[in-house]
Amino acid sequence: MGNIFGHLFRISTFGESHGGGVGVVIDGCPPQLEISAEEIQVELDRRRPGQSKITTPRKEADTCEILSGVFEGKTLGTPISILVRNKDTRPQDYDEMSEKYRPSHADATYDAKYGIRNWQGGGRSSARETIGRVAAGAIAKKILRQVTNVEVIAYVKRIKDLEGVVDPNTVTLEQVESNIVRCPDPECSDRMIELIEQIGRQGDSIGGVVECVARNVPKGLGEPVFDKLEADIAKGVMSLPASKGFEIGSGFGGTLLTGIEHNDEFYIDPNGEIRTLTNRSGGIQGGISNGENIILRVAFKPTATIRKEQKTVTREGEETLLAAKGRHDPCVLPRAVPMVEAMVALVLCDHLLRHHGQCKVL
Amino acid sequence: MGNIFGHLFRISTFGESHGGGVGVVIDGCPPQLEISAEEIQVELDRRRPGQSKITTPRKEADTCEILSGVFEGKTLGTPISILVRNKDTRPQDYDEMSEKYRPSHADATYDAKYGIRNWQGGGRSSARETIGRVAAGAIAKKILRQVTNVEVIAYVKRIKDLEGVVDPNTVTLEQVESNIVRCPDPECSDRMIELIEQIGRQGDSIGGVVECVARNVPKGLGEPVFDKLEADIAKGVMSLPASKGFEIGSGFGGTLLTGIEHNDEFYIDPNGEIRTLTNRSGGIQGGISNGENIILRVAFKPTATIRKEQKTVTREGEETLLAAKGRHDPCVLPRAVPMVEAMVALVLCDHLLRHHGQCKVL
Amino acid sequence: MGNIFGHLFRISTFGESHGGGVGVVIDGCPPQLEISAEEIQVELDRRRPGQSKITTPRKEADTCEILSGVFEGKTLGTPISILVRNKDTRPQDYDEMSEKYRPSHADATYDAKYGIRNWQGGGRSSARETIGRVAAGAIAKKILRQVTNVEVIAYVKRIKDLEGVVDPNTVTLEQVESNIVRCPDPECSDRMIELIEQIGRQGDSIGGVVECVARNVPKGLGEPVFDKLEADIAKGVMSLPASKGFEIGSGFGGTLLTGIEHNDEFYIDPNGEIRTLTNRSGGIQGGISNGENIILRVAFKPTATIRKEQKTVTREGEETLLAAKGRHDPCVLPRAVPMVEAMVALVLCDHLLRHHGQCKVL
Amino acid sequence: MGNIFGHLFRISTFGESHGGGVGVVIDGCPPQLEISAEEIQVELDRRRPGQSKITTPRKEADTCEILSGVFEGKTLGTPISILVRNKDTRPQDYDEMSEKYRPSHADATYDAKYGIRNWQGGGRSSARETIGRVAAGAIAKKILRQVTNVEVIAYVKRIKDLEGVVDPNTVTLEQVESNIVRCPDPECSDRMIELIEQIGRQGDSIGGVVECVARNVPKGLGEPVFDKLEADIAKGVMSLPASKGFEIGSGFGGTLLTGIEHNDEFYIDPNGEIRTLTNRSGGIQGGISNGENIILRVAFKPTATIRKEQKTVTREGEETLLAAKGRHDPCVLPRAVPMVEAMVALVLCDHLLRHHGQCKVL
Repeated sequence: MGNIFGHLFRISTFGESHGGGVGVVIDGCPPQLEISAEEIQVELDRRRPGQSKITTPRKEADTCEILSGVFEGKTLGTPISILVRNKDTRPQDYDEMSEKYRPSHADATYDAKYGIRNWQGGGRSSARETIGRVAAGAIAKKILRQVTNVEVIAYVKRIKDLEGVVDPNTVTLEQVESNIVRCPDPECSDRMIELIEQIGRQGDSIGGVVECVARNVPKGLGEPVFDKLEADIAKGVMSLPASKGFEIGSGFGGTLLTGIEHNDEFYIDPNGEIRTLTNRSGGIQGGISNGENIILRVAFKPTATIRKEQKTVTREGEETLLAAKGRHDPCVLPRAVPMVEAMVALVLCDHLLRHHGQCKVL
Repeated sequence: MGNIFGHLFRISTFGESHGGGVGVVIDGCPPQLEISAEEIQVELDRRRPGQSKITTPRKEADTCEILSGVFEGKTLGTPISILVRNKDTRPQDYDEMSEKYRPSHADATYDAKYGIRNWQGGGRSSARETIGRVAAGAIAKKILRQVTNVEVIAYVKRIKDLEGVVDPNTVTLEQVESNIVRCPDPECSDRMIELIEQIGRQGDSIGGVVECVARNVPKGLGEPVFDKLEADIAKGVMSLPASKGFEIGSGFGGTLLTGIEHNDEFYIDPNGEIRTLTNRSGGIQGGISNGENIILRVAFKPTATIRKEQKTVTREGEETLLAAKGRHDPCVLPRAVPMVEAMVALVLCDHLLRHHGQCKVL
Repeated sequence: MGNIFGHLFRISTFGESHGGGVGVVIDGCPPQLEISAEEIQVELDRRRPGQSKITTPRKEADTCEILSGVFEGKTLGTPISILVRNKDTRPQDYDEMSEKYRPSHADATYDAKYGIRNWQGGGRSSARETIGRVAAGAIAKKILRQVTNVEVIAYVKRIKDLEGVVDPNTVTLEQVESNIVRCPDPECSDRMIELIEQIGRQGDSIGGVVECVARNVPKGLGEPVFDKLEADIAKGVMSLPASKGFEIGSGFGGTLLTGIEHNDEFYIDPNGEIRTLTNRSGGIQGGISNGENIILRVAFKPTATIRKEQKTVTREGEETLLAAKGRHDPCVLPRAVPMVEAMVALVLCDHLLRHHGQCKVL
Repeated sequence: MGNIFGHLFRISTFGESHGGGVGVVIDGCPPQLEISAEEIQVELDRRRPGQSKITTPRKEADTCEILSGVFEGKTLGTPISILVRNKDTRPQDYDEMSEKYRPSHADATYDAKYGIRNWQGGGRSSARETIGRVAAGAIAKKILRQVTNVEVIAYVKRIKDLEGVVDPNTVTLEQVESNIVRCPDPECSDRMIELIEQIGRQGDSIGGVVECVARNVPKGLGEPVFDKLEADIAKGVMSLPASKGFEIGSGFGGTLLTGIEHNDEFYIDPNGEIRTLTNRSGGIQGGISNGENIILRVAFKPTATIRKEQKTVTREGEETLLAAKGRHDPCVLPRAVPMVEAMVALVLCDHLLRHHGQCKVL
């Protein structure tokens, strides 16, 4: 269970790291949207391993095939199924893991829950599962862009203690993609890359913070009370592998202010639109978008799989030691950027459809 | 939409701050659970306004009535409907708000979304909506307690920059309830109360952080990939009014460590159980509970309703000024404690049922 | 579980026959719909017991109270909660049923499933549960009427072997309500009433068929493949107490025709609309409404509660005899008419919102 | 939307008649179930076209591939994705249909709803979509068999006016599969085959009734009030292509009886089990299984695609004539048998898991 996300724009992902392949079925995509495998591939390439010297060296083209739901270049309104075959699998790298649980990985909990697991390469808990999310996110992004030119842009804000200076209100995709760490602060990004390479050489790993902005979001998206826009975004990004924290707008820092310092005062802009002078709310008030930029941050822990030796136990309950021999990704954050964008886009797209469904009928 | 939470243990809350009343329908509660209105009332009393000198002075007994689903003191397996009538409503306090939008409140976004709102006392966006959650949470807690003696305990960890020292592994409900701010650090709690009173006298407000621990959670709860236990908890607490951030285990702080520093190494405890030496994972790995204590934190912003004058606009698009005249709650955190407990308990209970449904059949 | 119906226009019903009351929470109702308790009461009065000499003599005013979701006569877009208190309860009538299972009633299966039941008057399986459905259906009908003047009209088509002659394309609500059996064939209705009275005097009961037509339904409602419009209607009406069969359009009779006899040929009407010459499809093709009248029938078995003595068993597993002493409804069909209308309206309204959500965004 | 079915055992089907392929993702399958592609293939072969002289001549091996969720022959508890490639597609057969709507098919309504459709071979409305259902049904059947040896057996009960004599309490799969029309009445089946061949030669088509029995179903499955077992089964089978009617137990015929004639009296069997002397309830009372055999019937109309010339219209709104040139299936019923079994098994399996989830926890 738990592999379906969304209410009107619903996705089901499937697939393990090793096995036939991974993919997604999208149920509820509006009809007549122009979409091609090439457009989806662009996003998958941003997520794919082996794309630069600072990511996991697994070699996967991650070429996607659209199996259904698209006809003569346009969506049909029927389920869109997208499949990516697994290619560069090395089950032998994981032989040891069939018996030993990797610390802070999902090996032990999957066994506790199901009594069985695909121990080859992380199985279902592999970051490879996010291929389906990113593919679906590419479609969600396109819908959002067509409706009100919504842009969803994420970037690396911090790697360990190296924090970039980025203005979420003006940052562009080109700036994000201008370097391999995806931090649109040129000076800081160089130091980040250097740090990741150094940590990687040590067989260790590091984490950090991804920031994401959604601009031009129409007012009115989000459903009180449980399906608040920030609650659904929180669920979406906290379901990504390795995420440990989420904040919207002022976040944890906002707790240090008083009400008069924190509140976003209103004004009328030259177009007669109600706007706020500040944006500590992060674009959402009472669970509903207010037309300001939606700004959020996600904390990612250092990758669990490291080449340093650690204490662990076997399935049979023996204490032992383990140093991962498999491919090792010293920092997941550059590849987490398209994952965060995908989850935010999926939530916004779902709420866009829901809002039309409830509030545009009468 | 958006007023239903959970998958097997599902709750629908209803009601505005002013109007007939607020409440909840619980669908999917296991049968034969002993439950009484008195037990539910205990939790509602922890949430209710006017319970101490540092909370909103609204006078509500918040007496609950069980309308259905319980027979001769036991649950029937049918929907449990719980109703709390609104009593101490003062619509006249809100006359000004019918025209002026309160900054950082939901007034403007509700109007943008629905074109209509109940402007009396916050309507559906009022903290009063959480009565239904807390009532349902009382039942969820009881189920959890009966199954494996699960305890869910939340407390105020920080008010503005005053942070208490609390050990989540040993803290008791009695310690939490020993003072009106619900911070089980006696020295710190006095300073917190003083600060809240001072801020309240100024007509201003403050926020902070609530921490929550769930102990004795059985291994195996949580569903990869979207319905990870931490993802559903994140959604639950981020749907509470005024929450701006969430973290599990090491959270944002964990991003400053390397993999070798962050990973939780395994060992075998004297009972032969697989345990972790540390708990930076916060009791959840790969979205599934690992038997360690689940520990999480929620950031609450300073309450939006303050008596200080602020810039705002009217429904008709005129700029104006507003100083709230209604009852003013300088700090929501003491009352947020039972709300956080309720949301965590609801998620755990739902996942307990889901786990039985999928994994205990064959 | 199982007490929530619908996807965007979702209702949760609650309540047992005896106990605090019964009701419904509607989540997802569009905002700004004018609605009053009086309008809802009109439908409840058509469903209520004791309304004529041929229905159950239970005396219930079934007066409804709107607890939330409506403000100054208009819906808010927030959950609408409607409560009807139980009044004329006679638990003493059911003392015997606390031990003896009524044949073909839900007594034994509730006990088998839950190990507990509210044996007073049928508990949750009582027809009284449909109050929540009919109240919600009243709102669904109003939405449908406002959007494209959709009319949903049901009537008694057959009682035992007495079948009325009714043209679904022209029948009016006034004709249906012109007699107490709700069969708009004046000659036949007299004989039906006579038969029901005669059967009632014998302490026995009879069933029959309710037919329902929905006119002016816009093209395009219904979702392939599982949520086909007829599939959701089938589920809705087959969830009503005592229903045993469902058919749409030609139904079971259509299986006696060949393809050339059964197919509905197309033509272009004077307005340039694509229409069908016949309507054996019953207004739905491929799960989607085609603009023709939706016509369906529901079979209701004779009421299980009868005053004749029958073989049964006790909770303790002893064989015994039972003749119901409680109030006895010789024929549920006149009161089933508003229930069928409600379920059809709820499904249509839900699909109207879903269609807008998916297909009217781009 | 509408392509997801089930609550705990949830399936998402995808795929059009022409295009990359069709398939299903199963979310929520219990772990550690032994399953192989070969077992699933057995059911697909019963559904596949071209299997005998009386079905559609389309030549499809319908070979399935399990892409995920199974490891070393056992289910993982993760999503099971099953893919069947389309092979024998003949888009050229459908050129005329790109412009002309086939009467009583989904062509016109898909266009009305989505403004676009895959006109090759029926697209999503093709019976080919049911491959995913049948594949998932094979797994559901295996789970049911393991838990309490539940058997789900369907068969052709009637073709046009030729009705077989079959005892649902004793019929075996072998008897059903002993002839190509799947009617386990040897004498009648010969006449049915003859009739289908004769009608096929005329370019016409016929329908009929499929009956289905589920034996050894444990007591207690089904959820009052909306998710009654018969309501969910009704939805499942009414979502199959060409179905026009559903009845459970006594069905429409039961409306001709009085209560005393219809009620199923209780007795205690030699094992001390509560049983009913008759089974007009069809194994379900109050929406919950009572341990008796579940017996239901589904009406299928004559196939819409025929080779006889009929009046129709073009997309552009011109009246015209059409005689289908594509492959023509004179009677869908033999292939509908495994489809009905699949839907009934899916509903029973889902409710089995739900029942464990709610009622076996405390």
